[in-house]
Amino acid sequence: MQGELIVFSGSSHRELADGIADQIGMPIGSARITRFSNENIKVKIDENVRGADVFVVQTSCPPVSDYLMELLIMLDALKFASAGRVTAVLPYFPYARSDKKDESRISITARLVADLLQAAGADRVLTMTLHAPQILGFFRTPADQLMAHPILIQYFRQKDLSNAVVVATDAGSAKFAGYFAKRLGTPLAVIDKRRTDDSESAHSVALIGDVKGKNAIIYDDEIATGGSIREATRILRDFGATEVRVGVTHGVFSGNAVETLNAANLDELVVTDTVPIPTAKQKAMKNIQVLTTAPMFGEAIKRIHEGRSLSEMMET
Amino acid sequence: MQGELIVFSGSSHRELADGIADQIGMPIGSARITRFSNENIKVKIDENVRGADVFVVQTSCPPVSDYLMELLIMLDALKFASAGRVTAVLPYFPYARSDKKDESRISITARLVADLLQAAGADRVLTMTLHAPQILGFFRTPADQLMAHPILIQYFRQKDLSNAVVVATDAGSAKFAGYFAKRLGTPLAVIDKRRTDDSESAHSVALIGDVKGKNAIIYDDEIATGGSIREATRILRDFGATEVRVGVTHGVFSGNAVETLNAANLDELVVTDTVPIPTAKQKAMKNIQVLTTAPMFGEAIKRIHEGRSLSEMMET
Amino acid sequence: MQGELIVFSGSSHRELADGIADQIGMPIGSARITRFSNENIKVKIDENVRGADVFVVQTSCPPVSDYLMELLIMLDALKFASAGRVTAVLPYFPYARSDKKDESRISITARLVADLLQAAGADRVLTMTLHAPQILGFFRTPADQLMAHPILIQYFRQKDLSNAVVVATDAGSAKFAGYFAKRLGTPLAVIDKRRTDDSESAHSVALIGDVKGKNAIIYDDEIATGGSIREATRILRDFGATEVRVGVTHGVFSGNAVETLNAANLDELVVTDTVPIPTAKQKAMKNIQVLTTAPMFGEAIKRIHEGRSLSEMMET
Amino acid sequence: MQGELIVFSGSSHRELADGIADQIGMPIGSARITRFSNENIKVKIDENVRGADVFVVQTSCPPVSDYLMELLIMLDALKFASAGRVTAVLPYFPYARSDKKDESRISITARLVADLLQAAGADRVLTMTLHAPQILGFFRTPADQLMAHPILIQYFRQKDLSNAVVVATDAGSAKFAGYFAKRLGTPLAVIDKRRTDDSESAHSVALIGDVKGKNAIIYDDEIATGGSIREATRILRDFGATEVRVGVTHGVFSGNAVETLNAANLDELVVTDTVPIPTAKQKAMKNIQVLTTAPMFGEAIKRIHEGRSLSEMMET
Amino acid sequence: MQGELIVFSGSSHRELADGIADQIGMPIGSARITRFSNENIKVKIDENVRGADVFVVQTSCPPVSDYLMELLIMLDALKFASAGRVTAVLPYFPYARSDKKDESRISITARLVADLLQAAGADRVLTMTLHAPQILGFFRTPADQLMAHPILIQYFRQKDLSNAVVVATDAGSAKFAGYFAKRLGTPLAVIDKRRTDDSESAHSVALIGDVKGKNAIIYDDEIATGGSIREATRILRDFGATEVRVGVTHGVFSGNAVETLNAANLDELVVTDTVPIPTAKQKAMKNIQVLTTAPMFGEAIKRIHEGRSLSEMMET
Amino acid sequence: MQGELIVFSGSSHRELADGIADQIGMPIGSARITRFSNENIKVKIDENVRGADVFVVQTSCPPVSDYLMELLIMLDALKFASAGRVTAVLPYFPYARSDKKDESRISITARLVADLLQAAGADRVLTMTLHAPQILGFFRTPADQLMAHPILIQYFRQKDLSNAVVVATDAGSAKFAGYFAKRLGTPLAVIDKRRTDDSESAHSVALIGDVKGKNAIIYDDEIATGGSIREATRILRDFGATEVRVGVTHGVFSGNAVETLNAANLDELVVTDTVPIPTAKQKAMKNIQVLTTAPMFGEAIKRIHEGRSLSEMMET
Repeated sequence: MQGELIVFSGSSHRELADGIADQIGMPIGSARITRFSNENIKVKIDENVRGADVFVVQTSCPPVSDYLMELLIMLDALKFASAGRVTAVLPYFPYARSDKKDESRISITARLVADLLQAAGADRVLTMTLHAPQILGFFRTPADQLMAHPILIQYFRQKDLSNAVVVATDAGSAKFAGYFAKRLGTPLAVIDKRRTDDSESAHSVALIGDVKGKNAIIYDDEIATGGSIREATRILRDFGATEVRVGVTHGVFSGNAVETLNAANLDELVVTDTVPIPTAKQKAMKNIQVLTTAPMFGEAIKRIHEGRSLSEMMET
Repeated sequence: MQGELIVFSGSSHRELADGIADQIGMPIGSARITRFSNENIKVKIDENVRGADVFVVQTSCPPVSDYLMELLIMLDALKFASAGRVTAVLPYFPYARSDKKDESRISITARLVADLLQAAGADRVLTMTLHAPQILGFFRTPADQLMAHPILIQYFRQKDLSNAVVVATDAGSAKFAGYFAKRLGTPLAVIDKRRTDDSESAHSVALIGDVKGKNAIIYDDEIATGGSIREATRILRDFGATEVRVGVTHGVFSGNAVETLNAANLDELVVTDTVPIPTAKQKAMKNIQVLTTAPMFGEAIKRIHEGRSLSEMMET
Repeated sequence: MQGELIVFSGSSHRELADGIADQIGMPIGSARITRFSNENIKVKIDENVRGADVFVVQTSCPPVSDYLMELLIMLDALKFASAGRVTAVLPYFPYARSDKKDESRISITARLVADLLQAAGADRVLTMTLHAPQILGFFRTPADQLMAHPILIQYFRQKDLSNAVVVATDAGSAKFAGYFAKRLGTPLAVIDKRRTDDSESAHSVALIGDVKGKNAIIYDDEIATGGSIREATRILRDFGATEVRVGVTHGVFSGNAVETLNAANLDELVVTDTVPIPTAKQKAMKNIQVLTTAPMFGEAIKRIHEGRSLSEMMET
Repeated sequence: MQGELIVFSGSSHRELADGIADQIGMPIGSARITRFSNENIKVKIDENVRGADVFVVQTSCPPVSDYLMELLIMLDALKFASAGRVTAVLPYFPYARSDKKDESRISITARLVADLLQAAGADRVLTMTLHAPQILGFFRTPADQLMAHPILIQYFRQKDLSNAVVVATDAGSAKFAGYFAKRLGTPLAVIDKRRTDDSESAHSVALIGDVKGKNAIIYDDEIATGGSIREATRILRDFGATEVRVGVTHGVFSGNAVETLNAANLDELVVTDTVPIPTAKQKAMKNIQVLTTAPMFGEAIKRIHEGRSLSEMMET
Repeated sequence: MQGELIVFSGSSHRELADGIADQIGMPIGSARITRFSNENIKVKIDENVRGADVFVVQTSCPPVSDYLMELLIMLDALKFASAGRVTAVLPYFPYARSDKKDESRISITARLVADLLQAAGADRVLTMTLHAPQILGFFRTPADQLMAHPILIQYFRQKDLSNAVVVATDAGSAKFAGYFAKRLGTPLAVIDKRRTDDSESAHSVALIGDVKGKNAIIYDDEIATGGSIREATRILRDFGATEVRVGVTHGVFSGNAVETLNAANLDELVVTDTVPIPTAKQKAMKNIQVLTTAPMFGEAIKRIHEGRSLSEMMET
Repeated sequence: MQGELIVFSGSSHRELADGIADQIGMPIGSARITRFSNENIKVKIDENVRGADVFVVQTSCPPVSDYLMELLIMLDALKFASAGRVTAVLPYFPYARSDKKDESRISITARLVADLLQAAGADRVLTMTLHAPQILGFFRTPADQLMAHPILIQYFRQKDLSNAVVVATDAGSAKFAGYFAKRLGTPLAVIDKRRTDDSESAHSVALIGDVKGKNAIIYDDEIATGGSIREATRILRDFGATEVRVGVTHGVFSGNAVETLNAANLDELVVTDTVPIPTAKQKAMKNIQVLTTAPMFGEAIKRIHEGRSLSEMMET
């Protein structure tokens, strides 16, 4: 039904794209991305794509706006080069946490991103572990969300979980953590931190559930600056947790995340490779473990291309 | 800027629409809605609406499809009658819980509803307490979400809360409940119920947090059949709660909800009037308290019409 | 060119859908349609449809709004499940008679239905004998209209037509009746009924053309309540018609149609199965003859799937 | 609500546009329409239209394509010159009879015209007496249809109608004629002409209803070549009609219509001025009477501009 | 990937269409184009096109509006006849010089044409040598522009170019001429004509560059009335040019172009056949040479159909 | 007609925005733009904009992608905050030179930018001196282009132009330069540089026209790296130009432009402030003169808001 399968890669995460291409058993399609001295980006697709079934891998990481613009330009070039079908593959979806209007007169930027992708020519989207599953509804095109849960669950199941408890860092992430706890068969605990007055610094902290003498696993969809992880770790240790591990899908690690997390003194920090972590950064981080999502993306792309169902791959 | 303000009402909840109109200080616009013997619905708008700033109040309640179709027909009639701007006012948003694709090959029907409303001619939408705030992102038109929280918070603050605890019936609703607990200044507890094998009936139950000797307030966005409320009530009493009250925005009360909830033997059941509860039903329900949202909708419509900000009305 | 052919059926007329599937020689695709206690409808497509050439059979009959909503949800689920092409098959088109704006500020609801179908994901439409052929122009997608005329003509040609006259019940349906009279080779007559004052009851009746001593065949696109058929029958008998038969495509039979038509004492009532007539209802109706359209729909679907022309099937 | 009212005129029917402007009491807006030697059309709007409520009067008459293209260019120029609202006023709608797909693989060109008008920038449409009222459903913008019936009815009511009969030239136009007969209080007759074999020339003719010794008034929406009017006149005289008059809205008079209609020897031919009839042509035509629609269009434009209802003007 | 290739031809340039079809090795698809006495155009596609990969050849030449409308109707008929993909092939793009807003309140009509083509159903466009390459950006569909340069360069390279100079008739066409001069390896000259006062007739003329004793080749994208070519020829001869030849892609030859150009007494006038030049006209023109573009269009259509790249064909 | 005028500024060029606001006589609207450590941008509009007539000033300069994304987010926030009309004011249009497809499979990124602006919610656009005027045709919304020519012409007219010649640096910019020469009343010259073989370095240079002993003014729409200006300066001096001045609208000055232009040793470099030039940079550049466009933008915004024509402001 579909034309030839070609996978292109933007500049954001060539390593993951190569891993995906290896999984599929074909090289990355040839395209030249140039950034001029005036910061304008030019994309020249070097292969004929008329009628082809094209996938473009581009994740969201700094420089965030440049990589998003680069992707939009690639989609535009592919569409007007008469590609048969273009799927944007976004391992970490841009602005995923900007998914609601919790103040007046702000943008639901994840929805804007969905609009921009479609305006630029994306016929469909493939992404992983959205902050909220409702984001799929921002698209008017078919969109598939892979879940990194199975990768993380498989990893933690190799551990001794007899004394483990899964922890949500606040009520808002109790849903993700609750799911994980069920799948690992551990109890759940929730940190409930509140401001005691209008100042930023004054807080009271409650821990709902029991962590004393237990091995805590903080679970969430992403780590940004690491600040709330550090604070949660401190609270858990205060409440008597023996070990503190962290499992998250997207290791964004922005700002001083490396220092912050090292200072948190975690027993283990487990992330996937949806966001690239340069080797130097990885080496600088204590106890980090990076799990690859390339086989999952490769398998999904093959199935989409061949018109096969993804449902067996879907854990939600 | 806008033309004359006219509020129309569909057939679903005339009482609320009248309350809104009273609040604004004008009568409901004249329209005849006919249902023929072949079940086709006809709407005849009886007033000139050229250039007018029109609001149509229609909530989602049985017969759900008929009321949705009736609304779509009204919107279409108004648009082609050259209304200046048409706002669909949906106190309880249709299919609000069908907001994600948690199985393969199902519809995100809340998004479909958003598409249908826009296809039929809604220029904007006003709704209340969505199951997930991301649903606003399903629209390509401006959309405002009022929150019933202040109404419920104001009500519960009149009580003695010194011994109260707010309870979420599962990890997924911990976010709503956590917000409510913070605003009332009470602790939070979460019920964590799991299946112990593949049978529907075998469950283990944990209660994260402490309810013993306390007055529990279960908080959520809606009650449908009342089944999970009844079960939560039983669990709370098992764990030693002294009183069990419930505060929810949308009192859907479908199926055998009246019997189920009466059997639950709640100390109090507080809902708003976003969904109509016929007098007989209300009388049949023990300890029910219905709070009206008409002033809030009336105020919001006035502000939208006059181009004033809603932000002071927004609690999120 | 197209992917695998799969025919799904909504809940409205499984018998016709099965007849169509038999004609094509394949089973109906597997989908689960659930109606919750809150009247929300859920559709779960149970087969992989990526790239498939999908047809969804759903006619318009009570509960009209539910079946329309069910269809829209199926289309949405199929589109976002990456179906290659989705054709809505509507044997009796919803709101077909609401095709013009004959009063101010009403909806042309047949056009709204066309918009909703497209908004929900229909790539094309297949229907039968529209009240007005202009309705095809309401679509921005390819749409095919099959005509039931050949089925009805073939049936009546088996009769002795030497003394027959085709009758239109009013000037507005003279076009349909005139076409039928030409194809059967009979004369035409038109009933011209007028109100003589503003009261509903006072009418004068003229019969243009000659029915005395003849076998009258009333011909139209649909029967709703049967009221105008009963009145036409009485007029024809008053003017001396020997026999009165009726041939229509869509047997809607709403309200008290069964009683009304039985009271009309027709010699024969011939309809097709575009609208389901439950067995009990069929048994209750005197002299009814139901002709199946399944072979025509089956043939059309096969041709559309194979990219063959429908033009030989088209009588207009 | 709307900005300043400005009426522009295309080149097709300046006389009617001037009549409309007179009715409104303002001059036609200044615009220069140039046709270059390469037949490209240029429109230069000479007045500031930012925010204005603009109406463009252009009917369909030869050169048909040029006038349609000229209109599309005017709409485009007005839209991009930031006009507030642009209404295309089409007294005779282009391709109005091409409103259905009565053969395979033809265009419903009236729908295409609706699409083109919207693509070029028409925010709304005002037209008169469509061949089929369903054509309004081809638009996704508000559209108003005026009916010329009242003008024609008022004219014929001045005559002695005691012996009159209204005649439809075939079953397809029985609806229009039946409506007219009712309003005039006369009987109705229908000509039923059929081919007796496959040759074009062999016909049988029946006249349903009674015209002997009566004054016949043929009624329809338009006259094109006049051929069917001439044939109907001959038939009516053969069946004993004393007088034959004709009342139609759109006097298209294409091909040899002047000669054909003069040869038909009508007692009177009544048309409106929706299509321009040059003075010479008018003088050459026997017994023609042209009724102006300018007051009706002028009144409608004023009402639309002022946001007043058209419903009292609507006869359908 | 695509269905069967079928090439249709509008009425504008059957000779070129036949040449293209010959090149491809297949006959022109069967379609009947009728023009009624009321100037309405009807297109009846006589072949099944379901799923087919259709190309429609229609150039812009008088009657310009009729041919554009005819094309739009063909596109509409093909789209609703379920053609798989429809490419409009426009050898000379309509209104190509109306590509900017160099006065207030005029239409960028080339963009309007792009919109109309898409509204009518063109999925893609193939054209040749646009006045400005930016026009491709007016489309939201893939669009390919062939360049006639190689045909003209190949022709002029057969001449002795040792003493040649390429001339632009004004600064605005220096870009086209500069490109041509580079490819032929000749110097460039530019005519710089200015009005000396507000009257149309008073001009000063400068010739930038050197033409004395040289063979001048005026190069541009099109000739309309020939007026500026005649004036340029006179200037070049005044400045001492030995020979004056002209090379242009589109020989529009409107108005008195034949007389004007004959009076200009050119040594050679070379055009392509993107615009038809009737035999009589061609015979009447001195020293004209018409080069065919059929092989280039035929090759491009084959490549597009087969999903092969056009890039080797592209000279820009 | 329009609501209250509010001008917002993005982060790219606050100085120009302040100048514009001064010109209008009102402060810049209050909005907070935050850039998080993960590089996500958040825009919070701090004023009620319901129904307002909003203008957002954002030019294109480094960081180019961030400023474009920031603008898109502001547009989105304003649209969903129910602004009445939103105009994006882009003094230097992003990717203006990426306006054509001069290679296969590249993006016409200026058109993509137009699409993105519209997708994000721009109702109209105001920009200045586009590289090609056709770019206005990339919009489906009204768009106005101001021209900086009058500012530059006014400046150079203050000089002694008796011995001046305007120079285009290549044939492609002869159009801009020719226009400028006409308005200043000077002759025109064109530099014609060609590669003599396939290596980048080997060039032949011709100068068409006469610069010996003259004061040259190089004129163009923008300076990027300054490389071609430096080379043109050298050529002009080689051919005997006495002085070399430069007049351009957009002073992009990317890469080593400061060093390159200083090395070019220009007698004067005149630019406008459509692109910000930080004070330090300005001080580092020899002989630079920056002309402000704020009065022109301020005047245009006032006129657009008040519905007055811009045509007197338009020089093209």
